[in-house]
Amino acid sequence: MKQLLTNATLLTFAGPDGPRAGAAAGALGLIRRGAVLMDEGRIVAVGPADQVLKHPDARKGRIHDAGGRVAMPGFVDAHTHPVFAEPRLKDFELRARGKTYLEIAAAGGGIVSSLNGVRGTSERDLTALLQERAARFLACGTTTIEAKSGYGLDKDSELKSLRALKHLAAGGAIGVVPTFLGAHAVPPEYQGRPGEYLRFMAREVLPAVAAEGLARYADVFVERGYFGTAEAGEFLRAAKGAGLGVRVHAEQISHSGGARLAAELGACCADHLDHADDEDLGALKAAGTMACLVPGSNHFLGLGEMPPARRIIDAGVPVALATDFNPGTCPCWNMQEILAIAVTRMKMTPEEALVAGTVNGAWAVGLGKTHGALAAGMAADLAVFDCTDYRELCYWFGKNLAATVFKAGKVAHAATDLRL
Amino acid sequence: MKQLLTNATLLTFAGPDGPRAGAAAGALGLIRRGAVLMDEGRIVAVGPADQVLKHPDARKGRIHDAGGRVAMPGFVDAHTHPVFAEPRLKDFELRARGKTYLEIAAAGGGIVSSLNGVRGTSERDLTALLQERAARFLACGTTTIEAKSGYGLDKDSELKSLRALKHLAAGGAIGVVPTFLGAHAVPPEYQGRPGEYLRFMAREVLPAVAAEGLARYADVFVERGYFGTAEAGEFLRAAKGAGLGVRVHAEQISHSGGARLAAELGACCADHLDHADDEDLGALKAAGTMACLVPGSNHFLGLGEMPPARRIIDAGVPVALATDFNPGTCPCWNMQEILAIAVTRMKMTPEEALVAGTVNGAWAVGLGKTHGALAAGMAADLAVFDCTDYRELCYWFGKNLAATVFKAGKVAHAATDLRL
Repeated sequence: MKQLLTNATLLTFAGPDGPRAGAAAGALGLIRRGAVLMDEGRIVAVGPADQVLKHPDARKGRIHDAGGRVAMPGFVDAHTHPVFAEPRLKDFELRARGKTYLEIAAAGGGIVSSLNGVRGTSERDLTALLQERAARFLACGTTTIEAKSGYGLDKDSELKSLRALKHLAAGGAIGVVPTFLGAHAVPPEYQGRPGEYLRFMAREVLPAVAAEGLARYADVFVERGYFGTAEAGEFLRAAKGAGLGVRVHAEQISHSGGARLAAELGACCADHLDHADDEDLGALKAAGTMACLVPGSNHFLGLGEMPPARRIIDAGVPVALATDFNPGTCPCWNMQEILAIAVTRMKMTPEEALVAGTVNGAWAVGLGKTHGALAAGMAADLAVFDCTDYRELCYWFGKNLAATVFKAGKVAHAATDLRL
Repeated sequence: MKQLLTNATLLTFAGPDGPRAGAAAGALGLIRRGAVLMDEGRIVAVGPADQVLKHPDARKGRIHDAGGRVAMPGFVDAHTHPVFAEPRLKDFELRARGKTYLEIAAAGGGIVSSLNGVRGTSERDLTALLQERAARFLACGTTTIEAKSGYGLDKDSELKSLRALKHLAAGGAIGVVPTFLGAHAVPPEYQGRPGEYLRFMAREVLPAVAAEGLARYADVFVERGYFGTAEAGEFLRAAKGAGLGVRVHAEQISHSGGARLAAELGACCADHLDHADDEDLGALKAAGTMACLVPGSNHFLGLGEMPPARRIIDAGVPVALATDFNPGTCPCWNMQEILAIAVTRMKMTPEEALVAGTVNGAWAVGLGKTHGALAAGMAADLAVFDCTDYRELCYWFGKNLAATVFKAGKVAHAATDLRL
């Protein structure tokens, strides 16, 4: 069905040559009284309202009056771990009470508790949990998520996690870019044998993932105590061989070589980058690998330091922002909150943060040509927010200003009825 | 009209002797399958559902099934500055771009821009803005706010601000405890003459505030470059003489004597306390003066340090948590977010944070006997949240889980329809 959104303070993130990753200055594509005409899930026309309204189909469908509100592409959240059974509330309380990571693990917490949770939950129940969570993302203006497996860490549980994501995607409520993260951590069965575990993943699980078309990317957590660059590289090369794109959890806790590996393999994206040095950034820029920053996890862990966003931007590496939604280190599904943290604590400008959460997020998950910006022919994924100045999305915090969210040209969430 | 809320995971915050300030361990008053019967704005009965349902009036009104969700008293936000015209978006962007406080002030920003905004806005328009903002507080589960004037800083504008709050209160949508904060800063007209300004406030404005019954408290910002303890003490004594309670912005930026002054004057509450030392805490405890902590402003300003919540609790001073909602340092109306910051960054336990946002908040604004807890005879101000474990309110962040909010026994906000 045709839908027209009009009278919006529109951010298109598309320049005269269309959307491109990493643009910052002047990248908002602001149209003061803008309109978007949608049909069959795509944008038919976008521009100043007086021009779009001249389109022969402009008044043939449902009309929504944004009343001057900010409207823009739905957020593309480029890094999430949504396939888990239970929130880790016990770990959370223990950490508040001063317990260390090791003490929490000894009490049965940490990633092993999530692993047991996923292994003990059916594909059907995981799917239902994903659908509930997707509704929360959507209600905050996110229309596409990159979503990783990685709490199963055995063949059946990783495949089950990815199949649950496939069911979520098939429902169409939210866009899903599935990533196989069997290399999230070393499971208890392989304790002390990370290389052997990754070879098992490459030999036994990766072919099944590829054969069923369950993932678009493979990802590895490169870190001391997790996976070294040698075994991670071997695994990611196998993934590329199987037709998957690659991405890397890099330099989060220490400087471990993940960024250089990502660049070397031509990864789409290197994520976290808290401890990336200037050589790493040079390698990423040269390789065309983007940076995906997830400051929400630093915030939730109470860390004093944040990822070095300004240094990364100054090095010319395009930055995407993402939630890192997960039960251990970032129980937050709201991109508005991540943008607020990015401005407040990483000194990104509101404009840079908005670009990072939309057009750059889309490029960081391989969807830059179709998502994350508003241009004719692109996906009709839009969010309308209860504010008239785009900076408010980063300024007010602990809030959700999403008024109406369109996914593939249909109203997917409406807190405020804008229909004329 | 009678309303029954049943099948709730109920937090009453009331012990066998009723609610009291500062209780922490065991203070939740958790009832697994609880119910609350409300009538005429008050709680008629509260307890296990099977007992409450035996009340002869239990089925005479509307019945709401919480479906196991957490229900508790609405938040009492004990420190807000909601009477302003515009958000300070320009300051926010300049700070992100690395400008200092002085550079922002030179560009026309800072408190002076809020002052000009309030002076240039009519009482009617300020009231409308307050009503919009109150709806946002309510939608997040806050049913009572302490609300300060303090962006007018001349006679007419301070009175106008307090009258706008009176109109808000009269509407009944949200509870309002009005505080006269003419002593928020030294206005440009009195630059360099803080004592003279406060004497003017005491002589010319305070009597009008008292005569019209516009404020329950007076408050002073005791800080270098703002007001010293001598002039602040003189002003607050005049306020007490006029029948107002007193509260103090104390030890926020430096150790300036505000806490000791608050204790000396028997203030209800000393707020901020970032730089309070052990002697200060001893004085507060001895005086029965509570601590109101506002970590949201530290967060928004990107400060590494947080108020010393653990030291204050260990010193035996009851802690309330509040938003500090204001356009310069804390654009956040959501108490759930403040609780999450308190646990994550001040290492309060979820239980302590919930107590601090409800029963302690009520005591910190002089409403401990009627608000902030659930007991027969108390106000029927309740919030039902979309979670079944109370720790989730502090764990998920950047979210609003409020499903249904009751103010004075009426449904004031409903994101989820719980009616049977």
